[in-house]
Amino acid sequence: MLGIVLNRESELQLWRQLYLALRDLIVSNQLKGGEILPSTREFAKDLEISRNTVCTAYELLIAEGYLISHQGAPTRVADHIWIEPTIQKECREEKISTALSISVSFRTGGPDLNLFPHYLWKQLVEKALGTLKISDYGYGDPQGLISLREEIAAWLFRSRGLKVEAEDIFITAGATQGLYLTAELLCANGRKMMMENPCHTGMLRTFINKNCSIVAVDVDEDGIRTDDLIKSENVNAIYVTPSHQFPLGGILSASRRAELIHFARQNDVYIIEDDYDSEFRYRGKTLAPLYGMDPQRVIYVGTFSKTVFPALRVGYLILPRLLQKRWCDLRTHADVQSPPFEQEALALFLHFRKFDRHVHKMRKIYHQRREALFSALVKYFGDDWHAYGDDAGLHVAIDFPRYHFDQKFKERCKNKGILVTTVENYCIEKGHHQSKLLIGYGHLMEENIEKGIKILSEVIEELYG
Amino acid sequence: MLGIVLNRESELQLWRQLYLALRDLIVSNQLKGGEILPSTREFAKDLEISRNTVCTAYELLIAEGYLISHQGAPTRVADHIWIEPTIQKECREEKISTALSISVSFRTGGPDLNLFPHYLWKQLVEKALGTLKISDYGYGDPQGLISLREEIAAWLFRSRGLKVEAEDIFITAGATQGLYLTAELLCANGRKMMMENPCHTGMLRTFINKNCSIVAVDVDEDGIRTDDLIKSENVNAIYVTPSHQFPLGGILSASRRAELIHFARQNDVYIIEDDYDSEFRYRGKTLAPLYGMDPQRVIYVGTFSKTVFPALRVGYLILPRLLQKRWCDLRTHADVQSPPFEQEALALFLHFRKFDRHVHKMRKIYHQRREALFSALVKYFGDDWHAYGDDAGLHVAIDFPRYHFDQKFKERCKNKGILVTTVENYCIEKGHHQSKLLIGYGHLMEENIEKGIKILSEVIEELYG
Repeated sequence: MLGIVLNRESELQLWRQLYLALRDLIVSNQLKGGEILPSTREFAKDLEISRNTVCTAYELLIAEGYLISHQGAPTRVADHIWIEPTIQKECREEKISTALSISVSFRTGGPDLNLFPHYLWKQLVEKALGTLKISDYGYGDPQGLISLREEIAAWLFRSRGLKVEAEDIFITAGATQGLYLTAELLCANGRKMMMENPCHTGMLRTFINKNCSIVAVDVDEDGIRTDDLIKSENVNAIYVTPSHQFPLGGILSASRRAELIHFARQNDVYIIEDDYDSEFRYRGKTLAPLYGMDPQRVIYVGTFSKTVFPALRVGYLILPRLLQKRWCDLRTHADVQSPPFEQEALALFLHFRKFDRHVHKMRKIYHQRREALFSALVKYFGDDWHAYGDDAGLHVAIDFPRYHFDQKFKERCKNKGILVTTVENYCIEKGHHQSKLLIGYGHLMEENIEKGIKILSEVIEELYG
Repeated sequence: MLGIVLNRESELQLWRQLYLALRDLIVSNQLKGGEILPSTREFAKDLEISRNTVCTAYELLIAEGYLISHQGAPTRVADHIWIEPTIQKECREEKISTALSISVSFRTGGPDLNLFPHYLWKQLVEKALGTLKISDYGYGDPQGLISLREEIAAWLFRSRGLKVEAEDIFITAGATQGLYLTAELLCANGRKMMMENPCHTGMLRTFINKNCSIVAVDVDEDGIRTDDLIKSENVNAIYVTPSHQFPLGGILSASRRAELIHFARQNDVYIIEDDYDSEFRYRGKTLAPLYGMDPQRVIYVGTFSKTVFPALRVGYLILPRLLQKRWCDLRTHADVQSPPFEQEALALFLHFRKFDRHVHKMRKIYHQRREALFSALVKYFGDDWHAYGDDAGLHVAIDFPRYHFDQKFKERCKNKGILVTTVENYCIEKGHHQSKLLIGYGHLMEENIEKGIKILSEVIEELYG
């Protein structure tokens, strides 16, 4: 009847198959407005299904307004339901494929996931599931769990001497979200953001997506050049990485820190301090955050992506008090809150000092890998290079003053099985850092580091030798 | 020496205490630029600590640029480090307190968390931790886990006959994030969004925060009044709740669905279909989403906050193909991805049909509670009211044609221990729905529902009787 065929093997119930078939006929104008439908009895007999099944399908079509039924009158198709078809020409745009055979990837920002204490973490997640209350499964505080905020405050004190109250800490879905929403809070709609140049281009994109105007300020070996900070109308924030400038690796000197704070105060500008990897410092001690110098002027952005693992999606902000209420409002409307399970497990990881132990262990390992990188550079390049910036983090910028690295170089590397980015890639204004490469080593075993540098030397020999 | 006192009981290491004390003296100008510091030997002797401790503190201060040290010369304070103090006048703004003693809260959108199978969920989370690979702990796909997307596609087919490919499904941090980022994608920077009036004010705020211009379109018992859709320049999207209009509860009729699609096509506008609770439908069958009528024109927004629990923070979008690449880019810069643990546990919950069973169970219970609400209304108000909209969801709009509910009414309710909102509260244009209350009952036991309605009748008697 009406060309409808039902499939008794299908997972889809019979009434729904009938409903969909009828709806398709109506929407495609094969059953036209006003047309009378077969009675439920006829339909049931013809399709060898129960009358109840037909009634269920009819009822839904009536409820949705596809069919019209009046007491005593036959069921009819409603008017004006037909939708002319569109040609489904839109095809999915292809995702960027990284299926090339890469044997050594010197990408930055990746911790070594194999060395994370996975078994312990599973135990902590199970423990966390046991300690959360039923009310924690409902809508919660956009600021995050108090247990985690207290543990972060304690860690900041014991590792950096920073005194912060848990009430001033705001858990985020990773540092990225912290920066994304801070940009919305401070710099959306054409207001200006000052940024280091070169800088993290992911952040640059985030800010540009928010319609911030970017004012680039150059960086040297001591971090952002505060002499170049020029008063400009409508600047609302300065984004800096003072503990370990990304990508050049400098530590902002104390005098520049003071100048930066002065400038921010004089111009009523907030400072966004992105502290993305200062836990991994190999010479000297971990630095005190800029935040401590003026807690009502500096927004501190912390992350656990490098110290725990990226998929955790937990970071935090320490916020000046005047911004806290607006932040909570913004977070509530952006995604309400972070899920509590990861937060509670991380709180336990910190509480039992397993976090401290893991960071301590990884700092040693990353240091060894850094040394292995330098040894390999000496082995293959002699003294034809120098490492930029200070001894910290999971990557280093290497200057090869004799070469200018270009797109052709990067493609040749890829074809030979290594991934390397250039510092030039991270520059807002191009043309000043073409001799520098950015080498991420944290996630690589020592033998792979050497292997990668060997291939790098072959590529350079081939192109520039 | 220099008035510095160290505390040997402190959790903070001695070198860090010394470092902080010296830094504070420098930053506060008590140690002035150029001043010569005591030698490490003198300092160690005076404070009765090892010379090594002093050296560590000095080294860090030198690295940060607070001190200057040249071979053979004494260590001095660097110039221009002093920061004049700011008065810390900013105090934390107070959070809104809901500490009032509320015995019955008729708030909307809350599932009953007590009836969720918590033990089973814990088992599934543990299982999920076992099935995830180490690479899942690194940065992942902004689109979400393929296992979950496949399970959602299967559920949409078996529950609604909707054929969707997993490639077109995008996991979000709750429906809120889906809507927030969709607004950014389509309507930021002054472009227009059409919205139902009344509507979900949380969504309204989200769109306004994004700087969307709002065009309100009135709603009646059949959903959005498509006759009122008027061509307007620069409209980019229409936000609708066709399965169960929020807050009035109407189901968008088939003819209006067709008109809405026609309008969207003619004006090249996207339709955002927010399907926030159609799993809970008590009469007739769950409706087919509008999405099925034009997958390249409709953005479908689904959530698990009502069917699983809100703190899960998992929702999803089904996106037209032309938007998919831009969406991934946006999500990557907003918060990268959702954490994989909840996603994998939810995939298992769906896979084993425990989700279907839970939804089935809760539909029965919520139906009983709805009936209990209607019985209580009859008991205390006779036939002086009528329920607006259709039989679905976790809340209902009740019209009391004789009364006009105002702020005084809401406050009196609060003082008597019940929380009730008015439909007027959700109106973009005020003045048309003052006789309607919005009663959320999903999270309330039957006896509490009756208790709350009794108090409501007393308040109404007192104010309007």
